[in-house]
Amino acid sequence: MSVTAAKGFTAAGIAAGIKESGNPDLALVVNNGPRRAAAGVFTSNRVKAAPVLWSEQVLKGGVVSAVVLNSGGANACTGPQGFQDTHATAEKAAEVLPGHSAGEIAVASTGLIGLLLPMDKLLPGVETAAGQLSEHGGEKAAIAIKTTDTVHKTAVREGDGWTVGGMAKGAGMLAPGLATMLVVLTTDADLDAPGLDKALRDATRLTFDRIDSDGCMSTNDTVLLLASGASGVVPAYEAFAAAVREVCDDLARQLIGDAEGASKDIRIEVIGAASEDDAVEVGRSIARNNLLKCAIHGEDPNWGRVLSAIGTTAAVFEPDRLNVAINDIWVCKNGGVGADRDLVDMRFREVRITADLAAGSQSAVIWANDLTADYVHENSAYSS
Amino acid sequence: MSVTAAKGFTAAGIAAGIKESGNPDLALVVNNGPRRAAAGVFTSNRVKAAPVLWSEQVLKGGVVSAVVLNSGGANACTGPQGFQDTHATAEKAAEVLPGHSAGEIAVASTGLIGLLLPMDKLLPGVETAAGQLSEHGGEKAAIAIKTTDTVHKTAVREGDGWTVGGMAKGAGMLAPGLATMLVVLTTDADLDAPGLDKALRDATRLTFDRIDSDGCMSTNDTVLLLASGASGVVPAYEAFAAAVREVCDDLARQLIGDAEGASKDIRIEVIGAASEDDAVEVGRSIARNNLLKCAIHGEDPNWGRVLSAIGTTAAVFEPDRLNVAINDIWVCKNGGVGADRDLVDMRFREVRITADLAAGSQSAVIWANDLTADYVHENSAYSS
Repeated sequence: MSVTAAKGFTAAGIAAGIKESGNPDLALVVNNGPRRAAAGVFTSNRVKAAPVLWSEQVLKGGVVSAVVLNSGGANACTGPQGFQDTHATAEKAAEVLPGHSAGEIAVASTGLIGLLLPMDKLLPGVETAAGQLSEHGGEKAAIAIKTTDTVHKTAVREGDGWTVGGMAKGAGMLAPGLATMLVVLTTDADLDAPGLDKALRDATRLTFDRIDSDGCMSTNDTVLLLASGASGVVPAYEAFAAAVREVCDDLARQLIGDAEGASKDIRIEVIGAASEDDAVEVGRSIARNNLLKCAIHGEDPNWGRVLSAIGTTAAVFEPDRLNVAINDIWVCKNGGVGADRDLVDMRFREVRITADLAAGSQSAVIWANDLTADYVHENSAYSS
Repeated sequence: MSVTAAKGFTAAGIAAGIKESGNPDLALVVNNGPRRAAAGVFTSNRVKAAPVLWSEQVLKGGVVSAVVLNSGGANACTGPQGFQDTHATAEKAAEVLPGHSAGEIAVASTGLIGLLLPMDKLLPGVETAAGQLSEHGGEKAAIAIKTTDTVHKTAVREGDGWTVGGMAKGAGMLAPGLATMLVVLTTDADLDAPGLDKALRDATRLTFDRIDSDGCMSTNDTVLLLASGASGVVPAYEAFAAAVREVCDDLARQLIGDAEGASKDIRIEVIGAASEDDAVEVGRSIARNNLLKCAIHGEDPNWGRVLSAIGTTAAVFEPDRLNVAINDIWVCKNGGVGADRDLVDMRFREVRITADLAAGSQSAVIWANDLTADYVHENSAYSS
């Protein structure tokens, strides 16, 4: 399914030899039209990888005819040579895809920062992938963009005569603005670039921007939405936007569920906020509190650490009116001791924290992970 | 030495039974004058423990005649009862210390959040401690405020006829504004409260405010500076301020050196910044990056994670002008690959990261720790 669930798209995923392991590491997604409209959202990190700088330029035209993605190297902090390598990748794709031009080909990379890509393997890989393009290639493409992901991630929603599908990769460096990841969404709905852009931004704001596995924002985050128009259907905006949001939400949850070393998925809902911004700020502060993340790992309903995280924000609240529930047990009431903490059952992977600021009617949900020894192990040995 | 290095002070440290382990858990520091001037700096967390709320009021008068400190419980998020308990503690100290009044007695607590203190043990403990006050009691007091600290922390600097000494506790929840900790400094210099306040704020801004072990800000941070005037010497401000800063710096380094589960002390120096605020913002962002902290634990000179942390700030810089050294090897130059990373020797506990923003002449140093499996273990089992 993945990026080839919608009509008008072909894809491939191959092992180009970028990864020393020999695992798949290069994906190609092609929009065969008739339309080639596109929208993109990129990392807000000011240190942007070469492919992000390239693809941001491509997206300004509102047209993307193909996307080349590689794992095994982020091509970030690689200077002018890194940018030339991205450019050469797009040129190579244009060369092997008849009727395409480099200026309409997006590039995305993921892997270690600070290393040049092995172009002697990547460029032939683009040609190999072009030879394997298929309407059933979506799964292979999703597999080829994995780094430390243990599973590949895809999602699909069906509309009334049209489809939205997609693939995602991401397991570490997951934090808002955007979460660290590569995502390609495709649709056969007949929409122009501005409509796609609005639907994509509305969706990412509430999904990928609200997961925070480890507080670390990537240099390579890229989310693309490509429309082929192959269904011939022009959907109502609301229905289409809802489908895009559902696919993004599905993929975002899969990212959290596969986060490096995590043993818990933590759903943090902030309610009673004076504004949505307050709710998001408080949710992120809770999501990033290492002591709380350790406590959740230890199945310890340590609401004091929730309060100490809330206390570092500028949100509207009074400390003695705060309420906190963990798995629906209100262990903190009015800033002090509430229900018996022994009532909280934390055996399952999903943990729900509800923080009531008692200051209004706005709310937000942030998804996070616990902090584990496995996370430390995985990330202290990653590049060695 | 500790808080009784300066003339005019007595102290005691006892086991009152607050800790189930039976370890020392209650300290008393008394200023016997002739002066009883004082200054204090407290956590900027908006969720403040009862003793912080109490002591902030006491310090407004500029006079502190005694300090009662307990470990084994933070008395945070304990509502009106918690505040009454702090008040009762000060009243009890005033009762057993002739000539003292409760309104001039500061209280500090540390330990688990969200539990009421066992007042049936704490109040008799205050009386016991009063009976053991001694000019040699500083070490015992420093020992009694330990929580997860593996060692007690003291420091002393001698001036020209006067002395500044102090004690600190803190091992987790260490982050700027202030670092999580209790600190009592004493001096026999003859200074008034405004002078003490200026010297203390100047010192904490550059020391305790610039350590960040785990990004978690406490509800209980308290730093007090008490002056007895017993030396009869009125020091020059600069000399006194320098001594206070040195004692604070010494204690701050001891806190980092004993941080929970840490295997590395990381000195992050940001240079070439357009402003000191920029340097501090960038330093803190690097200090809090979990992926980088894991890499340092693994002795991996992963400068890409330094750049990705810098990129999340609003500081003035151009990505392609950033330089990063790890243990003095410039592994990143102009935003890209610099010297061979294999030249970096990271076997020792201290690791030095230098980040050059190439945007000005300002700088700042932030101290941090690595992130380890031991930190996770210690903090996932802490309250159970």
